[in-house]
Amino acid sequence: MKWGYIFMPLPTEVRIDTAIYALLIAFAACVALCPIAIPYLTRLKFGQNVRGDGPRTHFSKAGTPTMGGVVIVVSFALPLVIFAPGHPDCLALLAVTLGYGAIGFADDWIKVARKRSLGLRAYQKIILQLIVSGGFAFYLISSGFSSSIEVPFTDGFAFDLGVWFSPFVIFTMVAIVNGVNLTDGLDGLASGVTALVATFFGFVALMTGSGTLPALGAAIGALLGFLLFNSHPARVFMGDTGSLALGGFVGAAAILLRSPLLIVVVGLVYVLESLSVLLQVGWFKLTRGKRLFKMAPLHHHFELLGWSETKIVTLFYIVTAIMCLVGYLSIN
Amino acid sequence: MKWGYIFMPLPTEVRIDTAIYALLIAFAACVALCPIAIPYLTRLKFGQNVRGDGPRTHFSKAGTPTMGGVVIVVSFALPLVIFAPGHPDCLALLAVTLGYGAIGFADDWIKVARKRSLGLRAYQKIILQLIVSGGFAFYLISSGFSSSIEVPFTDGFAFDLGVWFSPFVIFTMVAIVNGVNLTDGLDGLASGVTALVATFFGFVALMTGSGTLPALGAAIGALLGFLLFNSHPARVFMGDTGSLALGGFVGAAAILLRSPLLIVVVGLVYVLESLSVLLQVGWFKLTRGKRLFKMAPLHHHFELLGWSETKIVTLFYIVTAIMCLVGYLSIN
Repeated sequence: MKWGYIFMPLPTEVRIDTAIYALLIAFAACVALCPIAIPYLTRLKFGQNVRGDGPRTHFSKAGTPTMGGVVIVVSFALPLVIFAPGHPDCLALLAVTLGYGAIGFADDWIKVARKRSLGLRAYQKIILQLIVSGGFAFYLISSGFSSSIEVPFTDGFAFDLGVWFSPFVIFTMVAIVNGVNLTDGLDGLASGVTALVATFFGFVALMTGSGTLPALGAAIGALLGFLLFNSHPARVFMGDTGSLALGGFVGAAAILLRSPLLIVVVGLVYVLESLSVLLQVGWFKLTRGKRLFKMAPLHHHFELLGWSETKIVTLFYIVTAIMCLVGYLSIN
Repeated sequence: MKWGYIFMPLPTEVRIDTAIYALLIAFAACVALCPIAIPYLTRLKFGQNVRGDGPRTHFSKAGTPTMGGVVIVVSFALPLVIFAPGHPDCLALLAVTLGYGAIGFADDWIKVARKRSLGLRAYQKIILQLIVSGGFAFYLISSGFSSSIEVPFTDGFAFDLGVWFSPFVIFTMVAIVNGVNLTDGLDGLASGVTALVATFFGFVALMTGSGTLPALGAAIGALLGFLLFNSHPARVFMGDTGSLALGGFVGAAAILLRSPLLIVVVGLVYVLESLSVLLQVGWFKLTRGKRLFKMAPLHHHFELLGWSETKIVTLFYIVTAIMCLVGYLSIN
């Protein structure tokens, strides 16, 4: 029997057109808002010492404003004001993204506006993340979301987590947010990889008729727009506002689409970035001072091997694209 | 009525799995072959003055080998040895790509191996292109291909070209090949834009159940693999071998998928690059010496405006991605 996708009336309320319009609106909003936000973010970071009129190519990384994630989150939320109502899962995805974005914003704001090198304290960050992901787990349980987890590449094998579902949701959210946060270290890396991962989950949403589809479109659009300013040489960074919002978005999307374990496949870059830090620190302690990588997270290792920034970013994009295709084979 | 895509038994012989396997095989082949081919291509270009052991970062563009298109074409053809037989359209697409690749190869070979700054003479190139695209038009007509052309965004309006179909095919092929050829001027530009365009046509093939699907998968895989070596800073260029093969591929795919006019939408970058040259030359002659752009094709204009190479390439990628989505709206 040959299987494939075909255009036909869908059994759900989901329209692919809606997702594409959400994408285009978010893209346009991000492209319009970035040039307005960048001078403001620059002023925020450096007091009144603005060099906005200097030659862009002479800006060092130290001179690049951060907190661009605010623009991503606003552009992402904008089309959802129109398209999310009526889709509870889409609203939940929006809420989790805004919640994590707010934690990142608090962190960035303390660092940048108060000129303190450390933002939120570790215990504050963890408590806030527990509140947002706990609230998300509560939403899932109270909306009758299934607590069984499907295992990719097993032809439908699933196991029921029962009461362990909430801890699993919270762990998954915190782990992914950490992974995306670590990935955000080279121009365009976290934004581009996440645009690809969002595209993958967009397909899953399309196939399963999920109400999250407009949010996935909006995320792709906002990220493509942001990439115009964030790709090498970056004129703005996303900051923790961006990386926490994106981490929350990816984690919540994967769970809502009943594919949390697929993140290990399609989000391999996030996983490897996290693992490289864990292994580096573990090995350092075990051997009392030896290093496994030249530097962690992984992208710095490649930098110290002499690879150019754009080459590393391209490699990580292509690894993600290929892993998305591998993941796609698993959901057939 | 809500419409969308859904997973179900397909009415054709086309399997999406096949296309993804073709993609992965072509990707693996390209990633494996590039490191083997690059030293050979370098030796070919510079006689015995190989600096393959020098620091990569110190290679200037003048030191980068060309004719990497050979690797694209070989990696593209490899999975099709398995997947194309039985699909006449897929074999035709392969044949046109190989035919145009051969013209580009002859051009590159004369330039590089004979150390002549000009390759094939203009009339030779045009005759060879007429032979390949004429052969393609002959295949279409003899296989009973419809000579009517659908107009995008018109809800199915089509006009029948009748005897003008063959000239239309030949004109379309030559115009696109020229556009892709002009686009090939910055690291990763032509390969990345064409990977996106091939992805778009892959969707069209999927929806229409076209037998060209494996070839579209193979092209995406070969181009993603090549991008690992061709993106900034490029270790290899595709040369005319690559840009002519890709132009032939895009043109033939668009015609076989009955969407030739959609190239103006999804291949907007090719169109603008061509138009910029036409307008520059036309304006220069009309005004006896004035320039419309700082330099043509268009990407050089942005370079002279002070944009970095990677920024221009990202912009052109994103324009292509957005135009593919706009094109997608037209085929619903």
